[in-house]
Amino acid sequence: MSLWDAMGLANKRVLILHHDDLGVTHAQNQAYLSLKRPSGSVMAPSVWATGLVGIAGADLGVHVTLTSEWAAPKLRPISTAPSLRDSAGFFWPTLNQAWGHIDANEAAIEIGAQIEAVRRMGIEPTHLDAHMGVVFRPDIAARFVALATELGMPVAAASNLDELPVPEEFKSLLTDIRERADLPQIEIIDSYEAPATRRREWYVDRLSRLGPGVYHVLHHAQKDTEEGRQLGDWEKRLADLQALSDPVVMTVLDEFVPLTYAEIGYAMRHYGEG
Amino acid sequence: MSLWDAMGLANKRVLILHHDDLGVTHAQNQAYLSLKRPSGSVMAPSVWATGLVGIAGADLGVHVTLTSEWAAPKLRPISTAPSLRDSAGFFWPTLNQAWGHIDANEAAIEIGAQIEAVRRMGIEPTHLDAHMGVVFRPDIAARFVALATELGMPVAAASNLDELPVPEEFKSLLTDIRERADLPQIEIIDSYEAPATRRREWYVDRLSRLGPGVYHVLHHAQKDTEEGRQLGDWEKRLADLQALSDPVVMTVLDEFVPLTYAEIGYAMRHYGEG
Repeated sequence: MSLWDAMGLANKRVLILHHDDLGVTHAQNQAYLSLKRPSGSVMAPSVWATGLVGIAGADLGVHVTLTSEWAAPKLRPISTAPSLRDSAGFFWPTLNQAWGHIDANEAAIEIGAQIEAVRRMGIEPTHLDAHMGVVFRPDIAARFVALATELGMPVAAASNLDELPVPEEFKSLLTDIRERADLPQIEIIDSYEAPATRRREWYVDRLSRLGPGVYHVLHHAQKDTEEGRQLGDWEKRLADLQALSDPVVMTVLDEFVPLTYAEIGYAMRHYGEG
Repeated sequence: MSLWDAMGLANKRVLILHHDDLGVTHAQNQAYLSLKRPSGSVMAPSVWATGLVGIAGADLGVHVTLTSEWAAPKLRPISTAPSLRDSAGFFWPTLNQAWGHIDANEAAIEIGAQIEAVRRMGIEPTHLDAHMGVVFRPDIAARFVALATELGMPVAAASNLDELPVPEEFKSLLTDIRERADLPQIEIIDSYEAPATRRREWYVDRLSRLGPGVYHVLHHAQKDTEEGRQLGDWEKRLADLQALSDPVVMTVLDEFVPLTYAEIGYAMRHYGEG
């Protein structure tokens, strides 16, 4: 029996609406509080992560961060992690620089440090996911999944790798890692590539077409503030907040059975995985 | 001949208007850009420090930070520094906790790491000052001043210790450290304790009464934004921005000879100290 069968979710349309990049700015946290949807994940190295402590009903994970792509705000690793740092001591700014330099052992130590840091802030993380896809390098992915398994935490690992921007040569290795770890089947749907000007329509069209299955729909909603506008892609973030506050989009979202990672984790620990 | 004589500043009314806590929020950086006064200092561990790179005419120092007093934004040391951290890995929140735990060797390493971090961001720091007075513990002060001397950097070390909120038992030790290092005589005037509602009048009254001397007048101006309001003392910060943008206050400021730490550092390296 699959995990979804055990949870009574077989043949249902199930949605984890997931707020990425929490803690990156105060404006990102404000959007989370405004939307009142439970699931999201926290960038532990950022100064606003502690702004998410003590929120009733929160379903917060660790948004494993191994890059820092903006000029400011700029993030450093929590661990020593020499291979994770550029010449100024920050995370590498691009995915390719990160992949070119990161030692997988140091990545694993940093991932562990970020999980521990979130716990020590007073947030019990319910799951792991990752920022900008650095963990798709297969040796890093293997460590990431092993750590999640060891901690009994669900991981947002796409069952639909073919649809995601992952290098072709990684896909069979990543599929092996997924299968060996017997991860629950979750389809990742990323709103990021939808145009900011048609984000509302994208949510309505894309989600209405989905049949039975468990979907992790990720977004980057951020309030429109001067601080928030320092992120180069603020228009996409604002478009997410506007779309997800829209009554028609909310109706489409509410046609799904809502699911949290806290519930998945509980079921994994009690009914076994897969 | 004193440094001030050598610089042609003897018997003049000389002002370094100094913007503290730069980098703590985007709103604090915005106030710096709005006021267009050169001198201030940067909190290297904060994510917005890099927002101050590349500003023409800037006179930026390192605002040595060894505490993190707000729930969010929350800062961590740049170095490993176990004694500088609370149980969650952040700097201690209060001065007394910091003084109770900090090992002076680890503080010296962290201070060096913050200076180096600012340099590697692309800002050549012109001076050192310190956040919340942690460096007033005499063994930390000795390291702080020794490092500044070694680097040939001016340090904002008050010649008027008696007027500052420094524990009585530290004062003679701090005076010894000042005198042994032969630091230039700079009187520190802190706007922080003036009531927010009368900040404008405070600047006018306090500065108008000053006779000849070199004064470091420090303020915490911050733009009024939702991010900025997360700092518990935002009203004091907003009052500084409003007061320092006021035409009457600006006239009072402009009656002084303006001085930067870059100029002091240049003179120290060329004419000797004292």
